[in-house]
Amino acid sequence: MIEDIFTDEYFMKKALQEAQEAFDKGEIPVGAVIVVDNKVIARTHNLTELLHDVTAHAEMQAITSAANFLGGKYLIGCTLYVTLEPCQMCAGALYWSQISKIVFGAADTHRGYRVMGTKLHPKTKVVSGVMENECSALVKDFFKRRR
Amino acid sequence: MIEDIFTDEYFMKKALQEAQEAFDKGEIPVGAVIVVDNKVIARTHNLTELLHDVTAHAEMQAITSAANFLGGKYLIGCTLYVTLEPCQMCAGALYWSQISKIVFGAADTHRGYRVMGTKLHPKTKVVSGVMENECSALVKDFFKRRR
Repeated sequence: MIEDIFTDEYFMKKALQEAQEAFDKGEIPVGAVIVVDNKVIARTHNLTELLHDVTAHAEMQAITSAANFLGGKYLIGCTLYVTLEPCQMCAGALYWSQISKIVFGAADTHRGYRVMGTKLHPKTKVVSGVMENECSALVKDFFKRRR
Repeated sequence: MIEDIFTDEYFMKKALQEAQEAFDKGEIPVGAVIVVDNKVIARTHNLTELLHDVTAHAEMQAITSAANFLGGKYLIGCTLYVTLEPCQMCAGALYWSQISKIVFGAADTHRGYRVMGTKLHPKTKVVSGVMENECSALVKDFFKRRR
């Protein structure tokens, strides 16, 4: 069956490609895609350094981009794939978007939304740890090179 | 002394003018300005409906605009004046910006960052309740007309 290829890993790989693009630009390597009906409608990566803008996280750009594509601000029926656990800001934006599902790779035990206590929308489902090692390795490699 | 005119009320009035512009466009009326050395470097209002974008809160736009003006992503030395208490997303963005001071008008007891438990940067000072009645009246009037 054709649908079998559309696993969480399938879309997380696309988010990882975005994270690699961020890495190559000297940005903290986080990538995101937003999917609806197995179709990617947004693909973004962190651009906080290039844009001098703390709001330019991959997830924030993905939310804006997906809403622009859909012509409406709510992301009901959409799934966000992001390589790193969202922060307070991104989780807060996802709350407003009422997105249906969030899939993230690596946990962020320092600044992630869970340790910070940020609330998601009650209808949002969360899957964590998809391709965790690959997602985490990219971030660790980035900070190792910066030292 | 000339400095005496630059009170919190002085800048909150400018944020209220922005909130009125949002009101006139049919947006939830929230306005913001960012000030450094008594100079307004960003003035924005909520545009979530017009842009179909949950991330287009007044504060988010103000952070982006101020950072663009300053040429750097940190807002150390800056003060944000906003007519309504920031939400999780905006407080999360303010956390990353390391902004020095936040002054808000009306409290948001449902979706404000305090009731939601969002953390600000430890160096950020907060002043609340400046022109609270005026800020709150605009929001109440907006929702009354929508019913």
